[in-house]
Amino acid sequence: MLHGVILAGGSGTRFWPLSRSDRPKQLLKLAGSRTLLQQSHDRLVGTSDEGSLLVVTNDTLAAGIRDQLPELPHEAVVVEPMLKDTAVAIGLAAVLLQQRDPEAVLAVTPSDHLIRPAARFRDGLREAAQWAQTPGTIVTFGIPARSPKTGYGYIRRGEALTSKGRLGSYKAEAFEEKPDLETAQGYVQGGAHYWNSGIFVWSARTVLEGLAKHLPATHAALQRIAEAWGTPQRDAVLRAEYEQLERISIDYALLEKAERIVVLEADFEWSDVGAWSALAEVYGQDEHGNTVHDATLETLDARNCIVHGPPGRLVALLGVEDLIVVETRDATLVCSRDRAEEVKALVKQLEQQAALQAYT
Amino acid sequence: MLHGVILAGGSGTRFWPLSRSDRPKQLLKLAGSRTLLQQSHDRLVGTSDEGSLLVVTNDTLAAGIRDQLPELPHEAVVVEPMLKDTAVAIGLAAVLLQQRDPEAVLAVTPSDHLIRPAARFRDGLREAAQWAQTPGTIVTFGIPARSPKTGYGYIRRGEALTSKGRLGSYKAEAFEEKPDLETAQGYVQGGAHYWNSGIFVWSARTVLEGLAKHLPATHAALQRIAEAWGTPQRDAVLRAEYEQLERISIDYALLEKAERIVVLEADFEWSDVGAWSALAEVYGQDEHGNTVHDATLETLDARNCIVHGPPGRLVALLGVEDLIVVETRDATLVCSRDRAEEVKALVKQLEQQAALQAYT
Repeated sequence: MLHGVILAGGSGTRFWPLSRSDRPKQLLKLAGSRTLLQQSHDRLVGTSDEGSLLVVTNDTLAAGIRDQLPELPHEAVVVEPMLKDTAVAIGLAAVLLQQRDPEAVLAVTPSDHLIRPAARFRDGLREAAQWAQTPGTIVTFGIPARSPKTGYGYIRRGEALTSKGRLGSYKAEAFEEKPDLETAQGYVQGGAHYWNSGIFVWSARTVLEGLAKHLPATHAALQRIAEAWGTPQRDAVLRAEYEQLERISIDYALLEKAERIVVLEADFEWSDVGAWSALAEVYGQDEHGNTVHDATLETLDARNCIVHGPPGRLVALLGVEDLIVVETRDATLVCSRDRAEEVKALVKQLEQQAALQAYT
Repeated sequence: MLHGVILAGGSGTRFWPLSRSDRPKQLLKLAGSRTLLQQSHDRLVGTSDEGSLLVVTNDTLAAGIRDQLPELPHEAVVVEPMLKDTAVAIGLAAVLLQQRDPEAVLAVTPSDHLIRPAARFRDGLREAAQWAQTPGTIVTFGIPARSPKTGYGYIRRGEALTSKGRLGSYKAEAFEEKPDLETAQGYVQGGAHYWNSGIFVWSARTVLEGLAKHLPATHAALQRIAEAWGTPQRDAVLRAEYEQLERISIDYALLEKAERIVVLEADFEWSDVGAWSALAEVYGQDEHGNTVHDATLETLDARNCIVHGPPGRLVALLGVEDLIVVETRDATLVCSRDRAEEVKALVKQLEQQAALQAYT
């Protein structure tokens, strides 16, 4: 069966002041009336052979996640005692799901990306699940690169494979880190590169065999955790094993070493909603290039601005352009649109001042 | 005796969103912990021969003014039933004060300007009061023009007079309306022009004789109002007379026709606090040219911005310059600094939209 695995342990400050240390991006309503986490959940519900759904997260966020997804059973929110990066988080999900379903196929997805429409995404997952039946196969989705984004990872496609459905299917030849602009422009023109969606579909068996081969200590630790699961020793074992575990991403641990990665050309809309500037894509722009979310916007000669604030708040812009304005209960951000990535650095500044930590 | 007369009937929208229709600029704390009205009051208290103090205003503002100046007796707030401009407002104050004190000298001042230090202002008033003893004399303060402001009125000085104290004293030759930039630059270079402070010191007798001569109908109406003052007919008479009164400013009614106007060269700091951009002068700027009032400001590469918000609110600026950011309970303004004068037009836009009138 196909089991959804949502990685929801991420922290991040690029959506400050809306995101705070206990309320990262995935818990925010940045694209519609449901949070990105809730949308990630909703999208995974309703595949034809739907199995369990796990959300992997940490102590800080678990309560907030359970609040946002009351339909999930308590044990569906798997709480890591500390951050050990994605190889461990995915390994833990695989080992737990394989206990219940030895033929489990995992659809591992981020919790904070925007994907629509959900139906097309689910169709894609079903197609990916067929590929994932073949032992040792990792399936991912490549997003046609519409522009030379330097903040994204890229997948270079190789030989075409015989499609198992609607989507173009290729051997994935390489995963490229965030490129510089020139390189990214080459990718877009060349046509052989996709944006890396960060979504992976593979069987629990493929995940665990990969770990056994490339990270045997991690594999063994995960087995011990699985044995303790559901026993009174669970928390103690989990913590003890995690303290010893190597911190490593799935990219380094498995993807770079994998022999058979299939990339499916996605036909859904995708955005990593990486910073406030992404709201223009999410919500569109009015005739002056302005985007407003929730708040009420009034402008006099203002162009290409992005405004977010609580409903009922009036934001008035006069004679300005290319600004991001974010209003929250206790803090306001006014930021040049092309510097949205630096909100991170701004938050670091706040964290370093005792009097301002309350705002982070 | 010297009686302070504060003209506090002004409305205005250039300090939106802090100023609202029932809370114009004079009722705001734009320069310190007391409102501009309260500061105008405080400055007039403590002259050596202090008489009564009147605040002339309208129905909309009377309650707010009494709240802000609880030390004033109820009757010291004179409420005009409708707006008839400054000639009538000053005439009313003159006729009421002359009833109590036939030798009354009036120090007529705006309620929404910034003047400091108060002690030097009071010294200037005492000197002005001496000049005002001479029948027919109008005394005003000229502010040395430090820059070619196009938003100010100017006074051209004529022959020097023998000073009666510390301040340079001149015959005022002409009142110039707001000039264009080139003209204003000429004024500043020429050295014979002052900014018009809008403060006038003259005896009640001089005011009323001037009105009797140039606006006899107004003079007669004011006499009838004075007779009804303190009787049960007061409100009815006031309203009936006001309905008939000509609406005219003191500049057109008397100043332009006056034969003897003395301009004293002020040695106090003066600002009309004409728009949000004035806050930089009022509060000074930090090493990056930024000014913050009440709110907490955090910047990352932000320059020459002016920020106002309630205490405890954090305003963070990233990669922006020359902006005005104003936070209030329900509305935010982000405005290019050189377009602060257009806030007026923005408010007009809001007033024209039923759904947004609540914000004006």
